[in-house]
Amino acid sequence: MKNHIMKFAALSLLLLGSVVSGFAQEVTNTQISSILEVQQYNRAIHIMAMLLLGFGFLMVFVKKYGRSALTATFLLVSVSLPLYLAVKGMGIFEGKGEIEQFILAEFGAASLLIAAGALLGRIKMYQYMLLGLLFIPFYILNEMIVVDDHFHFVGQVADTGGSIVIHAFGAIFGIAAAISLTTKQQREVSILSDANSDKFSLLGSMVLWVFWPSFCAALVPVEAIPYSVVNVFMALSGSTIATYIASVAIRGKISAADIANAALAGGVAIGATFDHASHFEAMVIGVIAGAISTMGFAIFQEKQEKFHKIVDTCGVTNLHGLPGLFGGLAAIVVVDGLDVGAQIKGIMVTVVLAVVAGLLSGKIISLFGSTKEIYNDIAEFEDAD
Amino acid sequence: MKNHIMKFAALSLLLLGSVVSGFAQEVTNTQISSILEVQQYNRAIHIMAMLLLGFGFLMVFVKKYGRSALTATFLLVSVSLPLYLAVKGMGIFEGKGEIEQFILAEFGAASLLIAAGALLGRIKMYQYMLLGLLFIPFYILNEMIVVDDHFHFVGQVADTGGSIVIHAFGAIFGIAAAISLTTKQQREVSILSDANSDKFSLLGSMVLWVFWPSFCAALVPVEAIPYSVVNVFMALSGSTIATYIASVAIRGKISAADIANAALAGGVAIGATFDHASHFEAMVIGVIAGAISTMGFAIFQEKQEKFHKIVDTCGVTNLHGLPGLFGGLAAIVVVDGLDVGAQIKGIMVTVVLAVVAGLLSGKIISLFGSTKEIYNDIAEFEDAD
Amino acid sequence: MKNHIMKFAALSLLLLGSVVSGFAQEVTNTQISSILEVQQYNRAIHIMAMLLLGFGFLMVFVKKYGRSALTATFLLVSVSLPLYLAVKGMGIFEGKGEIEQFILAEFGAASLLIAAGALLGRIKMYQYMLLGLLFIPFYILNEMIVVDDHFHFVGQVADTGGSIVIHAFGAIFGIAAAISLTTKQQREVSILSDANSDKFSLLGSMVLWVFWPSFCAALVPVEAIPYSVVNVFMALSGSTIATYIASVAIRGKISAADIANAALAGGVAIGATFDHASHFEAMVIGVIAGAISTMGFAIFQEKQEKFHKIVDTCGVTNLHGLPGLFGGLAAIVVVDGLDVGAQIKGIMVTVVLAVVAGLLSGKIISLFGSTKEIYNDIAEFEDAD
Repeated sequence: MKNHIMKFAALSLLLLGSVVSGFAQEVTNTQISSILEVQQYNRAIHIMAMLLLGFGFLMVFVKKYGRSALTATFLLVSVSLPLYLAVKGMGIFEGKGEIEQFILAEFGAASLLIAAGALLGRIKMYQYMLLGLLFIPFYILNEMIVVDDHFHFVGQVADTGGSIVIHAFGAIFGIAAAISLTTKQQREVSILSDANSDKFSLLGSMVLWVFWPSFCAALVPVEAIPYSVVNVFMALSGSTIATYIASVAIRGKISAADIANAALAGGVAIGATFDHASHFEAMVIGVIAGAISTMGFAIFQEKQEKFHKIVDTCGVTNLHGLPGLFGGLAAIVVVDGLDVGAQIKGIMVTVVLAVVAGLLSGKIISLFGSTKEIYNDIAEFEDAD
Repeated sequence: MKNHIMKFAALSLLLLGSVVSGFAQEVTNTQISSILEVQQYNRAIHIMAMLLLGFGFLMVFVKKYGRSALTATFLLVSVSLPLYLAVKGMGIFEGKGEIEQFILAEFGAASLLIAAGALLGRIKMYQYMLLGLLFIPFYILNEMIVVDDHFHFVGQVADTGGSIVIHAFGAIFGIAAAISLTTKQQREVSILSDANSDKFSLLGSMVLWVFWPSFCAALVPVEAIPYSVVNVFMALSGSTIATYIASVAIRGKISAADIANAALAGGVAIGATFDHASHFEAMVIGVIAGAISTMGFAIFQEKQEKFHKIVDTCGVTNLHGLPGLFGGLAAIVVVDGLDVGAQIKGIMVTVVLAVVAGLLSGKIISLFGSTKEIYNDIAEFEDAD
Repeated sequence: MKNHIMKFAALSLLLLGSVVSGFAQEVTNTQISSILEVQQYNRAIHIMAMLLLGFGFLMVFVKKYGRSALTATFLLVSVSLPLYLAVKGMGIFEGKGEIEQFILAEFGAASLLIAAGALLGRIKMYQYMLLGLLFIPFYILNEMIVVDDHFHFVGQVADTGGSIVIHAFGAIFGIAAAISLTTKQQREVSILSDANSDKFSLLGSMVLWVFWPSFCAALVPVEAIPYSVVNVFMALSGSTIATYIASVAIRGKISAADIANAALAGGVAIGATFDHASHFEAMVIGVIAGAISTMGFAIFQEKQEKFHKIVDTCGVTNLHGLPGLFGGLAAIVVVDGLDVGAQIKGIMVTVVLAVVAGLLSGKIISLFGSTKEIYNDIAEFEDAD
């Protein structure tokens, strides 16, 4: 009898104990995962600020094309986000969370905005939208091959913040597209900026600088975020200082365009390694990227535009192309246990796919002509002045 | 004896078990609720960015009235937030959290800024403050009737993001107030913008676009936020694309004002349904709202201003009034199990109360005159140039 | 035998119970601390927006010096953050979290930007960087003495949001440095702004206003954040209203510079007491700070500049110096159980150290000369127009 009571007491205690503590645990885990997704959504909002206010205003440096640049940004984002979600929604997401999917769509929109930067001011507003429709499927294809290794072809690539698949892909796509989308006349017109358009451009640049850590760390595990964030800021500090020094050293005076653009090169380049580099390595990568980018703007751009017979309006080659590729290669030095073969394969696939897709898309878009007034809001906007 | 020991052991175990697990649970729940409130505060900050930077700069489109528009925004926010908290603090909050109260106050400030948009440039700085003092009590009254159903008169209305009680209420209040606050002379002066003021206006517009999901989802439960956020962005994408198409279709060329304003109509309209609509429905609502709003700006505004003998400086009828009402009505189609009678009653109460309160407030404010120089900083600001 | 079983059952239950509930607790606590640090990082991003977009654009009020002001901001931040982390990394951090360290570095950068505001437009770009190198070690020294009470000299000071150690220290350092960095010629040139530079300045001001609560509450415990946030907004609302009234009362018309600057004085002054004041007290502190600051700009600044034979370009005396000291003293009235002696000692140490360090640093920086063209981008930037 006592035995029974004892057993009953023991069992009921056991039951009660596990129910009580188990219940506490369950509630917690559900709530925790909701809380973590809301923290992701905060980063999604930061990225959205980068897309519209950051990329948008960075492109307002073209003196007479500000309203067009901002409207194009609005349209590129509004076309690409739903398109990405719709395409990926056809079974490719494999149970990812709502916000995770959305952030992946924002990454695609960022890459698209980079591509558009090469063509800015020379195509019509609906051609930007067409560009979005053509770009996103190719971007998703490259993402499936290189990031998700969907076809078991590339292997594990280090590129959490998208140095390769977002920045380099977008830039190379844009340059390739520019080949069919630059006329002789357009190459002879110089793109003007003024003190005011420079200030708006620096505004965009600062928005990008401020929120860049949220871009890189958008999808990393919660416990890795603090270290990652500091690393991204170290890289940006490095490229900002290097840009000032390189700009003065090469040009004699500072170019506001160098500051607005190349100061961000550290963010571009650290995308492949921010979750592995030491703070010091992050800053060194930033310094090198800032120097490369400034040299690109100050020396390389003119030669490249002659060579490819293009205009790269925003200099995406020098802000996103070269620093992106440099960042992807830097992983070979910085990341312990990296699959070097996979990393190089990933870069090569990205380059080849971007060139082919860009050439093809540029050709298609060119069938719809060009703006009459280049680099000028008058082409499509009602008079304001 | 053994029995006693047994009972004692059992009891102490029970006690210990529940204390230990209970303690873990308690710590967790307290922390979790703090964490959730800090997440709310993040959204409160996003909304504050919308109020000052968003609404503020959207109104900078008036070429010579930029400093006044921004100062008016500062004053309207600074008067309305403490006032709302003070009035509601007199026993009406019923145990809501600190940040929840503050967000409700921000909602009131948003509605007030919308109302002020109709009068922008024609009243003096202290009249904006007087407007705030008159508006907030009426806003709270409408909120008590329609949102809280405090008088058990309306029933359950679907309007979490404030299509009806924030946007439509503010717009209609502003239009009604404009009737006493628009002179014949003022109706003959055209409101000028230029390329620069357009860029500032697009800046404000983009700030609103970026943070809009935090406005709608500010007070929804944590687990509903991810879905809600994507829905709001779908609606905004829809209205942005529709605005471009409608603007070109109606005007031949794009109007920067259409883009800056009507692109946001999706955010206005989705406020009543973002927590119920599918992503596709959200985008459709956005497309329709963008089209309605653009038609409003391009066609309807001139006729309305003649009919009511008013000037609606920022076109709040077309950005907040019509899309807000459309959004409230769209809930009838979209929300399963909606109390249709309550929804229509809620809309009607809001419209009637806004008209009466607006007429009355406009009359009172008009007793304090008007600015000598309309739509011009010179009226109240020291020369800068 | 039964006894043994009983004991075994009791022990195993005890073990099991504590393991189960202990496990739940452990998982939770690790995750919770990660989640809390990510919430801190959100505030770190808000502060970064204040540093670059806020302080940066606030300084764009100088008509022809916009690109320089923004570039200087970029460089000051990029030099000071890694420097602070490097110096403090030499054993002084004592186990603080990654993000907590970073936020402390941001506080140092904020104080540096305030100091730079006094010298804006009269030193070369590399002199701003030199300023950063000199400032940060002194700032850290003051922080160690006054905030950490590292030398057991001062005692417990109420200054969580840095009224004393961030705002007053930076302002006084800047004014002291200006003594060696202002020539007679520079004192005769008036600093011009225009409608456009005013708008950019108001943009910076609004960014600071919006994110200020995240600055003050950056490192307070999670449960104290909601109350703190509302308090900071109450103080800002108070100073904004007071600024408008004082500006009109003193000058007859509104000065856009008053609005852009003095509206923020509530944020400066509440830094010492936001975690102790009632909402009403917070608003009163804001009102007084706004009035003091506006009187400073409208009346005191000219006299001070003559007296000290300096130019205080951004009027940091009036935005950060006086309101900061007022805030530090206000704690004596507002904070229950305050160690008044420590509070006064903390203020005095800060003032003395800032004067000495500022004089010394100014002297060193002056050895590297001055810009040829003052308050003008042409001094160091490529022509844009």
